[in-house]
Amino acid sequence: MIDPATLDRIITLALAEDIGPGDVTTLATVPSGVRGRAVFLAKQPGVLAGMQALRRVYARVDGQVQVTPCQREGAVLTPGMQIAIAEGPARGLLTGERVALNFLQHLSGIATRTARFVQLVRGTGATIVDTRKTVPGMRALAKHAVRVGGGHNHRFGLYDGILIKDNHIQAAGGLRPAVERASQAAPHLLRVEVETESLEQVREALDAGADIVLLDNMDLQTLRAAVALCKGRALTEASGGVSEETVRAIAETGVDLVSVGALTHSVTALDISLDWG
Amino acid sequence: MIDPATLDRIITLALAEDIGPGDVTTLATVPSGVRGRAVFLAKQPGVLAGMQALRRVYARVDGQVQVTPCQREGAVLTPGMQIAIAEGPARGLLTGERVALNFLQHLSGIATRTARFVQLVRGTGATIVDTRKTVPGMRALAKHAVRVGGGHNHRFGLYDGILIKDNHIQAAGGLRPAVERASQAAPHLLRVEVETESLEQVREALDAGADIVLLDNMDLQTLRAAVALCKGRALTEASGGVSEETVRAIAETGVDLVSVGALTHSVTALDISLDWG
Amino acid sequence: MIDPATLDRIITLALAEDIGPGDVTTLATVPSGVRGRAVFLAKQPGVLAGMQALRRVYARVDGQVQVTPCQREGAVLTPGMQIAIAEGPARGLLTGERVALNFLQHLSGIATRTARFVQLVRGTGATIVDTRKTVPGMRALAKHAVRVGGGHNHRFGLYDGILIKDNHIQAAGGLRPAVERASQAAPHLLRVEVETESLEQVREALDAGADIVLLDNMDLQTLRAAVALCKGRALTEASGGVSEETVRAIAETGVDLVSVGALTHSVTALDISLDWG
Amino acid sequence: MIDPATLDRIITLALAEDIGPGDVTTLATVPSGVRGRAVFLAKQPGVLAGMQALRRVYARVDGQVQVTPCQREGAVLTPGMQIAIAEGPARGLLTGERVALNFLQHLSGIATRTARFVQLVRGTGATIVDTRKTVPGMRALAKHAVRVGGGHNHRFGLYDGILIKDNHIQAAGGLRPAVERASQAAPHLLRVEVETESLEQVREALDAGADIVLLDNMDLQTLRAAVALCKGRALTEASGGVSEETVRAIAETGVDLVSVGALTHSVTALDISLDWG
Amino acid sequence: MIDPATLDRIITLALAEDIGPGDVTTLATVPSGVRGRAVFLAKQPGVLAGMQALRRVYARVDGQVQVTPCQREGAVLTPGMQIAIAEGPARGLLTGERVALNFLQHLSGIATRTARFVQLVRGTGATIVDTRKTVPGMRALAKHAVRVGGGHNHRFGLYDGILIKDNHIQAAGGLRPAVERASQAAPHLLRVEVETESLEQVREALDAGADIVLLDNMDLQTLRAAVALCKGRALTEASGGVSEETVRAIAETGVDLVSVGALTHSVTALDISLDWG
Amino acid sequence: MIDPATLDRIITLALAEDIGPGDVTTLATVPSGVRGRAVFLAKQPGVLAGMQALRRVYARVDGQVQVTPCQREGAVLTPGMQIAIAEGPARGLLTGERVALNFLQHLSGIATRTARFVQLVRGTGATIVDTRKTVPGMRALAKHAVRVGGGHNHRFGLYDGILIKDNHIQAAGGLRPAVERASQAAPHLLRVEVETESLEQVREALDAGADIVLLDNMDLQTLRAAVALCKGRALTEASGGVSEETVRAIAETGVDLVSVGALTHSVTALDISLDWG
Repeated sequence: MIDPATLDRIITLALAEDIGPGDVTTLATVPSGVRGRAVFLAKQPGVLAGMQALRRVYARVDGQVQVTPCQREGAVLTPGMQIAIAEGPARGLLTGERVALNFLQHLSGIATRTARFVQLVRGTGATIVDTRKTVPGMRALAKHAVRVGGGHNHRFGLYDGILIKDNHIQAAGGLRPAVERASQAAPHLLRVEVETESLEQVREALDAGADIVLLDNMDLQTLRAAVALCKGRALTEASGGVSEETVRAIAETGVDLVSVGALTHSVTALDISLDWG
Repeated sequence: MIDPATLDRIITLALAEDIGPGDVTTLATVPSGVRGRAVFLAKQPGVLAGMQALRRVYARVDGQVQVTPCQREGAVLTPGMQIAIAEGPARGLLTGERVALNFLQHLSGIATRTARFVQLVRGTGATIVDTRKTVPGMRALAKHAVRVGGGHNHRFGLYDGILIKDNHIQAAGGLRPAVERASQAAPHLLRVEVETESLEQVREALDAGADIVLLDNMDLQTLRAAVALCKGRALTEASGGVSEETVRAIAETGVDLVSVGALTHSVTALDISLDWG
Repeated sequence: MIDPATLDRIITLALAEDIGPGDVTTLATVPSGVRGRAVFLAKQPGVLAGMQALRRVYARVDGQVQVTPCQREGAVLTPGMQIAIAEGPARGLLTGERVALNFLQHLSGIATRTARFVQLVRGTGATIVDTRKTVPGMRALAKHAVRVGGGHNHRFGLYDGILIKDNHIQAAGGLRPAVERASQAAPHLLRVEVETESLEQVREALDAGADIVLLDNMDLQTLRAAVALCKGRALTEASGGVSEETVRAIAETGVDLVSVGALTHSVTALDISLDWG
Repeated sequence: MIDPATLDRIITLALAEDIGPGDVTTLATVPSGVRGRAVFLAKQPGVLAGMQALRRVYARVDGQVQVTPCQREGAVLTPGMQIAIAEGPARGLLTGERVALNFLQHLSGIATRTARFVQLVRGTGATIVDTRKTVPGMRALAKHAVRVGGGHNHRFGLYDGILIKDNHIQAAGGLRPAVERASQAAPHLLRVEVETESLEQVREALDAGADIVLLDNMDLQTLRAAVALCKGRALTEASGGVSEETVRAIAETGVDLVSVGALTHSVTALDISLDWG
Repeated sequence: MIDPATLDRIITLALAEDIGPGDVTTLATVPSGVRGRAVFLAKQPGVLAGMQALRRVYARVDGQVQVTPCQREGAVLTPGMQIAIAEGPARGLLTGERVALNFLQHLSGIATRTARFVQLVRGTGATIVDTRKTVPGMRALAKHAVRVGGGHNHRFGLYDGILIKDNHIQAAGGLRPAVERASQAAPHLLRVEVETESLEQVREALDAGADIVLLDNMDLQTLRAAVALCKGRALTEASGGVSEETVRAIAETGVDLVSVGALTHSVTALDISLDWG
Repeated sequence: MIDPATLDRIITLALAEDIGPGDVTTLATVPSGVRGRAVFLAKQPGVLAGMQALRRVYARVDGQVQVTPCQREGAVLTPGMQIAIAEGPARGLLTGERVALNFLQHLSGIATRTARFVQLVRGTGATIVDTRKTVPGMRALAKHAVRVGGGHNHRFGLYDGILIKDNHIQAAGGLRPAVERASQAAPHLLRVEVETESLEQVREALDAGADIVLLDNMDLQTLRAAVALCKGRALTEASGGVSEETVRAIAETGVDLVSVGALTHSVTALDISLDWG
């Protein structure tokens, strides 16, 4: 579930930008007493995400619109499958349509792609995780959709985890001082992860006491060597150049986690429509 | 330019969700006196969009970070090209990095794809326009990126144009009553556009006095016939099934406008990085 | 109906400025268990507007106060007529009284004056429209009250219509370039209206392709000539110097629209009281 | 001076409702590099109020627009007099024009009428005060304009004064218990005023210990008698039926204060224009 | 009762800072279907305050959690006494626990200490009042807790009373001009109180027409003399150096009011726990 | 440093509740041209915290007030020591005084008490940490003040750490399933801490794989035994019954962390005044 207050903030923005001072088309063409019934239909195969947003959009647009789900969050969709039925005042149904679909199509797009990645690494022991590369405003929803697709979440933001990246290392004057300072200053409930680009850096990270080592853009052979170095001392996460073509081989190197930016930064909307009647 | 207040609303959300109560990694690893210099670099060919957001993100995160653009909004990028240089307190540089990149990559992704579509219809007389299928919260920015890529904007929301779609027609009890009510009730500064799915509906729309006829999901032959019917009586807009493969042929039917949802609903982030030093 | 979110924004301000941290008089004088019944009474003839605001004010102040309307929005009021009955906790009734009345009296004042103007032009074919000269914060409510009084709305703001006024013409370097740029740049769902002050400018506007010509501060003879020029080529709107004395003659020149700033910028509150018991 | 945060709240609403997602006319017709100069001109005699709002509107719309006042707040205006000069980017000048004028015309309208009332009671010893009958959202600005016009402010809202009105008396079960409870429960920095409609009630109010007696809708003879009763025991305030025709005679009865709802509930906008060049 | 909108503002902040993007512990450890029952228990003697906040916190966190009060606001608590029972989804119960307790413990701490002060002055005729020395954000709630403990409220803020303190006197160039300006400029519903530090200043205050005299940091003998001077001419308020040890003697000097900053600026939280089952 | 946006949120509330619609005393008594100079003075020994809030309050109240710090955040204060000098418009100085002092006194109170606890455990190897028992709205500021006083921060909220408390254990059906679910579901950058009340639970926690064990309300002997059990397997944190009297002995048991709720839930304001001239 997405935190309701967080969800409401982005829905507020979405309604403001789309409806703003009013839906002139609907007000002009549809008399206020007319009622309607409309069906959200899948037009592509995929994984459903965004039902909470769908319901909340309509609750905000017109509390009299009843949304009845036909599928659960995470359902595997096939073309033509009914996702939900919305009934009530025709004006409310029409005014909320586009915003509801925008959420549903974007989030289902994320869940669908995540599910493909998860499927591709099945049996390897590696976990697919997301990144902070999300479209602005959609972080919590995008991370929810990743979970729906079977992926795991990395940290949610800069506040709930320590991940020392290359630029931190440069600004801190080296990997070792960066890791040591982090271990000392951070609240004791946070682990320390550090990005490395070579086996030498992996060794340095382990010596400095890192809890997790991020292996960035390494070839498969280097990845395997890094995993061997870290075994029993730190978790490993692979990142960089991860695609549907490469993910299986990366996972088979033995890394614990594979993070995939494209899950959320390059989303292909899942085709869903709202059909009247 | 994007309206500053609108821009600030989505930046506020983006900073809240990413930084929240604080960037623990940077605070723990980088002493407060350290200064830095970092370069935004293109790693793919494309069209640049989002410089206003980039500058504003840093102004909000740390007013002492100076952002110096190396390219103008709309510049054609080649891999390795410097986009902007950011200098100032290292903490501010690092804390704002991800949010700045998220805006830049998403918006440049939109501009890049739009430019491809615009290029594909060059010489046909057709104009590429966007839709309301945008990621929630990003409407104004996404529409700006479309303009940067050489496209034109359709209406911004439900408040600044009358577009009677199939569901309105059903709820209104027919195309003709819908168009007539709209012509009567709407403020006199708004034109009336109506969606049609057959030549019969095109004729009905013209008879009812529509200013613009949306030709949805029609094959090329039907499109040509519809354009002939509308000539001199109404503008025409084609939509549905528009891809980089099909757009040229659609444009050559003589339609005035071609609207493309994928410009903004299925964005591939342009690869841009922030390199230290 | 007024958009609920828009209505709530101005009600929030109105309650904050009037009640602020609390109604000390009511809290001090009326025990919390006391219930009451009070009647909103018309004390002048007029047209009723603002019932939605009345109900919403009480819903915000005290959800237990029941408001029962005795008249519909737009009803013709005569002195002594009951408008609505409010029943419930006496404290809530008293605390919300002034804000509720302020909305009701201002909006009914607008509807009443609009109805007089509409009555005055009956049979001429001219439509009475409002302007953007509204008291800050009250735009949507004021425009609603104009509709209740039988008038039509001009654009709601700067975002939903193109109206090129004298200052735009000066800044743009001439009427023709202004109109041409507008026709080119504006979203295709917006018409282009241009303000003119002479027959020469009317001709220039028509040649430049304006959809609507605003005839500002012209005498009756010039208005008639302008209407003749525009016939079949553009709609006409008269503005400037429109009063209850002059409106009929202006309407009889054949203009399509007459816009009246005084409908909303110089409102005489309709006298309405809240009587206990 | 108006509290800046309060001023900003209503300006935020005013800009949102007028500009919203953007000023399409100005963006379409005026190139971004054009600069301009425009003069706010009085077109009627009156008293100037709203200069702080004028400056703040432009600071919010476009910080590069320079506003140079030609008159001070409270200046007596004659037709043709220059009020202020605005210079800077033409787009900003045009986009802020209507909102700036709406504030200026409404507030100057209040100050102008207040000055007439103040002039009418000169020499009588009575003070003209306002009421809470203000257009929603404009309370602080309207009360400021009353001061500018030479009037005094009554309480600002329900939180900064105790005024027991007829409905409170009914809900409290009588004038005496209402006044006594108020004297006991209210913070010791607040005085207690009570509304009366007859000499009998005036006596009851004095006996109960009221600090101020509001004499509502009394004829001149009753007012004089009430003033005599209250002399040395309580301040007196006359209200009800106060117009430019009646105010002098009311003031001459010896009342300390005369409150006038029409100062703020029925405002005639002062005619002010913005002329280019 | 605390104004609901005011209460919601601080609860919004409290929930944001504590829950933020989500309660990871509860989400990770407690399945979503589990229900629970938990009891708020007093672990110290004291006076209960904050029940409205308790209920509202849970209404905001999870509307399905039912809170059943076992005690009324203001109840005298003994260790082990049940305060309220909360039942419903276990996740909601756990997520809201800390914020609910933080309000309850802080406010009960204020009520408890206030009750001790009120008890200490019983029979003297002096009233215990609070000050504006409250923890930021908690003003309305803290003042409510003072009332619950039997104390009275001084003004709520700078807007609902005139209290001329030493720094005002210095800035105004003297006590007399300060009091005179205040009497003239202030709305007629506000009394004027002035801070004095010597008998000489008390006399000056009385001569200038002060309604209330604040006697700051005076010894008992001076207090008695000041009270004698003010008798029949002004109310008296003692402040400064008021503790549980000194308050009785101060009250016995005959002052009307004793204000105690420590009621709200140095709160000892009352020990209250939430026990499962 | 406190995050500026977070700081502004609580300052907004504090200014709204104290100043609200205006500071009537200052506006009435101090002419607008008067300038002043005032000194923040320590009146008790302690540790200074809150300088950022002090400066920001004045920046918000009146940007022309210059605040010059005389001491650094964290300075050891002795009575009479100058903390900061504020110069500028007298009105601004006076209007911001109370809010500025409320922040300064509360935060310095926290830093002062924290410093005492830190001093008491010096040399033991134990770290003093805070809790989530903060006054609503003040979380980030209170935790900053703890750092200023030499303490360390525990997690900031429910979102940045996993701490399984007794109620979670009950709701989860046991300590072991709670810890195991947490280890599995939580983002990999978060450690898992679990509350225990007996040595048996400590063993269970270690077996379940807890990273940190919270030892709640244990006597010194049990604490020592628990520390021995955890050595090399988990960090230990003592909580419950921690006072200035008991903290040294608790720290000497060898626990890694001692958490103290009273640092922030029962704050004694440090006495600081603002003296004119």
